Amino acid sequence: MSVTAAAGFAAAGVTAGLKKSGGLDLAIVENVGPLTSCATVFTTNRCQANPVIWSQQVMKDGVVRAIVLNSGGANCYTGSMGFQTTHATAEAVATELDISAVDVVVCSTGLIGEQLNLDLVKAGVFDAARALKTDAATSPEAGLLAAQAIMTTDTTPKQAVVVSPSGWTVGGMAKGAGMLAPGLATMLVVLTTDAVLNSAQLDAALREATRLTFDRLDSDGCMSTNDTVSLLGSGASGVEADVAEFTAALIALCQDLTLQLQGDAEGSAHDVAIEVRNADTEADAVTVARAVSRSALFKTAIYGNDPNWGRVLAAVGTTAAVFDPYGIDVAINDVQVCTAGEPDQPRELVDLTPRAVSVVIDLHAGSHSATVWTNDLTQEYVEENSAYSS
Amino acid sequence: MSVTAAAGFAAAGVTAGLKKSGGLDLAIVENVGPLTSCATVFTTNRCQANPVIWSQQVMKDGVVRAIVLNSGGANCYTGSMGFQTTHATAEAVATELDISAVDVVVCSTGLIGEQLNLDLVKAGVFDAARALKTDAATSPEAGLLAAQAIMTTDTTPKQAVVVSPSGWTVGGMAKGAGMLAPGLATMLVVLTTDAVLNSAQLDAALREATRLTFDRLDSDGCMSTNDTVSLLGSGASGVEADVAEFTAALIALCQDLTLQLQGDAEGSAHDVAIEVRNADTEADAVTVARAVSRSALFKTAIYGNDPNWGRVLAAVGTTAAVFDPYGIDVAINDVQVCTAGEPDQPRELVDLTPRAVSVVIDLHAGSHSATVWTNDLTQEYVEENSAYSS
Repeated sequence: MSVTAAAGFAAAGVTAGLKKSGGLDLAIVENVGPLTSCATVFTTNRCQANPVIWSQQVMKDGVVRAIVLNSGGANCYTGSMGFQTTHATAEAVATELDISAVDVVVCSTGLIGEQLNLDLVKAGVFDAARALKTDAATSPEAGLLAAQAIMTTDTTPKQAVVVSPSGWTVGGMAKGAGMLAPGLATMLVVLTTDAVLNSAQLDAALREATRLTFDRLDSDGCMSTNDTVSLLGSGASGVEADVAEFTAALIALCQDLTLQLQGDAEGSAHDVAIEVRNADTEADAVTVARAVSRSALFKTAIYGNDPNWGRVLAAVGTTAAVFDPYGIDVAINDVQVCTAGEPDQPRELVDLTPRAVSVVIDLHAGSHSATVWTNDLTQEYVEENSAYSS
Repeated sequence: MSVTAAAGFAAAGVTAGLKKSGGLDLAIVENVGPLTSCATVFTTNRCQANPVIWSQQVMKDGVVRAIVLNSGGANCYTGSMGFQTTHATAEAVATELDISAVDVVVCSTGLIGEQLNLDLVKAGVFDAARALKTDAATSPEAGLLAAQAIMTTDTTPKQAVVVSPSGWTVGGMAKGAGMLAPGLATMLVVLTTDAVLNSAQLDAALREATRLTFDRLDSDGCMSTNDTVSLLGSGASGVEADVAEFTAALIALCQDLTLQLQGDAEGSAHDVAIEVRNADTEADAVTVARAVSRSALFKTAIYGNDPNWGRVLAAVGTTAAVFDPYGIDVAINDVQVCTAGEPDQPRELVDLTPRAVSVVIDLHAGSHSATVWTNDLTQEYVEENSAYSS
């Protein structure tokens, strides 16, 4: 159960032939209403793919009736021909579903700098639209097919759902295994709810949720050109949701998907949670945690089950956050290896064989905290990413 | 010929027993004058090792008579005991050479968070000082021993020399193979000259040279806690150097050492020069080049001989430099794969089998340019750094 868990949504996932592997590669999620609320956050990368440029225009009136997503090509840096492909994709969806093209968000993922085959995309849209018109389109199976169709190097589809005791549901699907770093959103995510909320309410909730979840996943430090996270509201439950309750549920849902993305990051052997405590500001806490999450030396050490805490402090020291360099504590998997800048417990006490790793950095500079989730840097990551486009 | 190429310098490299491998691990470079000019740039990492903290104080009067360097331990985050070790090292050198401890720069490199064995250091200083008093201490062989003694994961010692037709010489040695990223300096470097120049003149020349060379080497994005680049002036040639000519020679010397460091970077299979052209400012050019040099996905692609130029643009897009995202050209090894944001020459034409790789990014936003040197990200890098401290 994911994008079809909430009432008022249909989904389809088909094989259009865009992926060399021959797997599912095109999905449509349709909001059948009665509402057409929508909110979307896009990558903050200034080099944006054609579907991002298109979808930003679509979002301007806050009305979205369908999202079409493809894997097998990012349609980024493909020039005017690439933009025409995105436009024609939206038009094809509009024609098949009898809606307006300007109410169709388009998402693409895959290699940058290669044209998508529009004929294959159109045929895929036709097949997906036919599937959307069947009763099965609102089933969990249809949601699963859509989640599978957006996978690239993902090894498993990512889905989550939260059912509110108040009578509404929010669910979602995500893809992303490499180029996992924030721009606000991370990778392609579609979230759906049948709560009665307008686009402005969805937007506020979505920005808060992405800020605390997807935006704090930083697997490999690389920001995508195509990241898009959309939240569609059908209002089909007929229940006006309390905004605070809805936001909390959305955060939980996005947190769930974030950890699924982390757990399936390319070639990773460890899931690392870097928590910064007692920072002067929340921004300081995020900055310090992110600096550590981007240290190749720290990440390779974790891969080698080596609690090399000096590499944590070397990364902390590159930031402008408020702290006394000799007033920092570091604990790894609950062993306090450094207190006030001096060695404390022997590093040999740290057991890094489990997949889950906790790094806690206490700056003793204030009362704010934040966690950034990352992965280790492994030989498998290098292997997978050195061979991706060939 | 390196630190002993210029007149007025003696050097020694000995085995103190700090390295588990049993190799050379302690060096002293002595300035026997007549001048005692000196300039030093230190890491800008806020988490600084004890020798950096000590040596910053030593530099305050612009007089340095000797530099002692050890591998086998960074003496960083080792608390007050670690600082005492640094102080006692300087005192031991001072006693042996009959100089003042506050004229002794100390440099250390190795694992963070472990105490150095002071007894071993003192014994090493004693042996090195004895060697310094022999005639051989000014020979090329003595310079080589010193260059070898500061190696960590380096596979070869790094030395360079420039002899001016005006009658003075400048030479140097460097170590560094991992944690290669700027703070101004990179890693441990000792430069010596017999030109007649005062400390202020050396300082200006050194800052200009490091800004254009060591500071633009960014192998793995990680900034060290111990980086120190020192330039000692003996004045022994008796020739007052033209400052502009000296600066140009120093830049050439540092460039030579920088490329030696790049060529020996841990596990690297490619030396990548990222040149940004036609930027609005030099700072913009450096920012863009550095963003690409830190993209794990770009670096893994180069390792896989994959000219995946989309990863170049995805990294460029994360910066705030002045450019039109769809007005950028990219060439890899002289094949223009992207023109104005559209695919140009087929990526298959790019041959990435040679070790040297050139990436040229034309922003079409001004008239400034800069080059950053980096390496690919390889399975061997991951292997080497996951096993370093164990």
